[in-house]
Amino acid sequence: MKDYSQITLEKTGAIATITLDRPDRMNAYTPVMMDEIIRAMDDVDTDDAIRAVIFTGAGDKAFCAGADLTPDDGASPFASADEVADLSDERVRDGGGRLTLRLFRSTKPLIAACNGVAVGVGATMQLAMDMRLASDNARYGFVFARRGIVPEAASSWFLPRIVGLPTALEWCMTGRIFHAGEAREAGLVRSVHAPGELLGAARTLALEIADNTSAVSVAMTRAMLWRLSATEHPMMAHRVDSRAIYTLSRGKDAVEGVASFLEKRLPDYPGKVGEDMPGFYPWWEEPGYE
Amino acid sequence: MKDYSQITLEKTGAIATITLDRPDRMNAYTPVMMDEIIRAMDDVDTDDAIRAVIFTGAGDKAFCAGADLTPDDGASPFASADEVADLSDERVRDGGGRLTLRLFRSTKPLIAACNGVAVGVGATMQLAMDMRLASDNARYGFVFARRGIVPEAASSWFLPRIVGLPTALEWCMTGRIFHAGEAREAGLVRSVHAPGELLGAARTLALEIADNTSAVSVAMTRAMLWRLSATEHPMMAHRVDSRAIYTLSRGKDAVEGVASFLEKRLPDYPGKVGEDMPGFYPWWEEPGYE
Amino acid sequence: MKDYSQITLEKTGAIATITLDRPDRMNAYTPVMMDEIIRAMDDVDTDDAIRAVIFTGAGDKAFCAGADLTPDDGASPFASADEVADLSDERVRDGGGRLTLRLFRSTKPLIAACNGVAVGVGATMQLAMDMRLASDNARYGFVFARRGIVPEAASSWFLPRIVGLPTALEWCMTGRIFHAGEAREAGLVRSVHAPGELLGAARTLALEIADNTSAVSVAMTRAMLWRLSATEHPMMAHRVDSRAIYTLSRGKDAVEGVASFLEKRLPDYPGKVGEDMPGFYPWWEEPGYE
Repeated sequence: MKDYSQITLEKTGAIATITLDRPDRMNAYTPVMMDEIIRAMDDVDTDDAIRAVIFTGAGDKAFCAGADLTPDDGASPFASADEVADLSDERVRDGGGRLTLRLFRSTKPLIAACNGVAVGVGATMQLAMDMRLASDNARYGFVFARRGIVPEAASSWFLPRIVGLPTALEWCMTGRIFHAGEAREAGLVRSVHAPGELLGAARTLALEIADNTSAVSVAMTRAMLWRLSATEHPMMAHRVDSRAIYTLSRGKDAVEGVASFLEKRLPDYPGKVGEDMPGFYPWWEEPGYE
Repeated sequence: MKDYSQITLEKTGAIATITLDRPDRMNAYTPVMMDEIIRAMDDVDTDDAIRAVIFTGAGDKAFCAGADLTPDDGASPFASADEVADLSDERVRDGGGRLTLRLFRSTKPLIAACNGVAVGVGATMQLAMDMRLASDNARYGFVFARRGIVPEAASSWFLPRIVGLPTALEWCMTGRIFHAGEAREAGLVRSVHAPGELLGAARTLALEIADNTSAVSVAMTRAMLWRLSATEHPMMAHRVDSRAIYTLSRGKDAVEGVASFLEKRLPDYPGKVGEDMPGFYPWWEEPGYE
Repeated sequence: MKDYSQITLEKTGAIATITLDRPDRMNAYTPVMMDEIIRAMDDVDTDDAIRAVIFTGAGDKAFCAGADLTPDDGASPFASADEVADLSDERVRDGGGRLTLRLFRSTKPLIAACNGVAVGVGATMQLAMDMRLASDNARYGFVFARRGIVPEAASSWFLPRIVGLPTALEWCMTGRIFHAGEAREAGLVRSVHAPGELLGAARTLALEIADNTSAVSVAMTRAMLWRLSATEHPMMAHRVDSRAIYTLSRGKDAVEGVASFLEKRLPDYPGKVGEDMPGFYPWWEEPGYE
């Protein structure tokens, strides 16, 4: 069960790296790859030793060239071949969205190290990650309108939150390919690096989180920012953060956080996501496909 | 019915151009102009030959100087003269919002080519368009607080989505006039051009969409990005994009999209917005005025 | 009741200045300071002579160094010491959020003049203000994950609206300290100034509003932008702005606004927030803590 055929999962200290690993096919996305990434996410999310996850692509050309348009089995690249009676059927569910909704539920920070071409689902899967870095040879494309389909992977929800609605509209309506510099200017990526320095920069960022912060705090922060920012009134956030401050400020990580600050030393937080999340977490009900 | 008195509607190939045409009055907005723009939108939205719409102003001074403050008939520039018993009366509805809500329902990409002064409703009407270009002599102003009224045309919804809340607050609280450069820096416009090159740049952008994309894909993309980005959870997007990918990937535009990509040629999509939108479109119920 | 022990409230013409005033403690936040700022807000909100409020810190080092981690009385810096039976108890409510929710309800423009260190609640309290200026020695930090707690003061709602979700995630997940230049680039602050010019720049901005706009228009604009931008459909804005344009365009400020514009002179608006808000204001029901 721990073995993967289209990705690799490597753990080094507190950092896990998930590598899309079909370099001869530009790491093109398949149902198998989707299952494997989700399985790897389940692994790292339940491994309290892991504090951050880096995603990258094998080889020096592509992060992921999108859905495999010419799969060996001849199946449709986009959707189930099954005919269904009703579009609320689970088999209708988009494979990109199955992945991004899983990433959305992550308790660990997710960092994209985009090392080359990222088009279609290769671009949209990165949107559910928290931080995106690119190599200077990276190219992106939300190319769906050039293939006769539409933005998938819930990217109509994610992309405008990341780059704003005007840029999202232009990228998705033209379907054009653009380079790392434009991605940086629009805020799709936080920084651009020489190819040989990309993974190192991603690891430095991951370690900044791992070395300085409480795992429970970061898991709570992730859920709060993604979810509460989308509500209609700041009272929704106040209800959650009041509970969180009240509960966590009585906990062992807050004791260590204040002590290490006053003693001007690095913290060593005892709390674990697997054991120490506050009792009211999760405070939401997850909507289902219908 | 095809004739207009305060605008012109011109169609050249796949591109329609709507020109606000009262140059002696800085193209100031009137109830007649509102009706004519809405009528022109109904025309282009039902014309499958049209793939994008450009909006500009006649003359070299103004896109639109706002509501006509000195109309020939002496009527209030802002609101119906009728006294109503209840503010939920249809006659209370703001004329700027009637227009932007119509633009919001467009199935075609809308491109603003802002060729000069754009204040009041001249600025807010552009917010419901998808892409905004400006000439370097353009000036904008959300001047409502300097006239004793408030931002209209649903701009309290649109403007923060486009430039972010802090810039929207400052522009609307000061009511100041600002130039194209500041508009570009804040993301209100995507690009600034010499006056003589503005319409050409807008046409180039419109043709990039027309030449490369499926009309059905773009109409769906427009509805998805504007509407689903405003929902509380990515599952709302997943429900729609799963249905769209499942349906459209079985359709003729997806066949042409994949074939033209693999054959490295320009696509020739057969799908039409008037005939080929997926059966679940529109998936929403439009809220009314109340 | 008008005296304060941890802040000062000064009124000069149309501008009020609230200064956090514990310079020997880097203006660290306490329950007393919270009460005093809220009391000062009640004062300026009901004083029709005041048109804008500037917030700054005493001394040349800090705006506010966050919750007082070493209070004289030894109390928890973050939360009530009381043990409660249920997290919906009012005593659980976060003290930062009590303040930002009060700022959220302000009818006057709020301007942060951040004159130095602003970490923890010293940073998050500024998010509910409308415009933020910084001195070039300002430093910010959303340090909660480095203290074993989470972002408070409803900042999971406010911060992504101001700087976008990716930057909010990185700042809150790393908990790092950053300088005014990064704050400016990300849009957290609108402008950076030499320390000696900070308050002057804030006053210039406040006076631009006071001298040119209607107080009623600005109070309405503030409520509309913050609240309606967070709704799901522009029709929600159209319902409110139609009522507002219809009502206010018949009012005395609109008469003066149009007259002063046509006469090319500064306006002198007679309307007062205390007396002249339209009858349907507030149009919302305020959600409570639960």
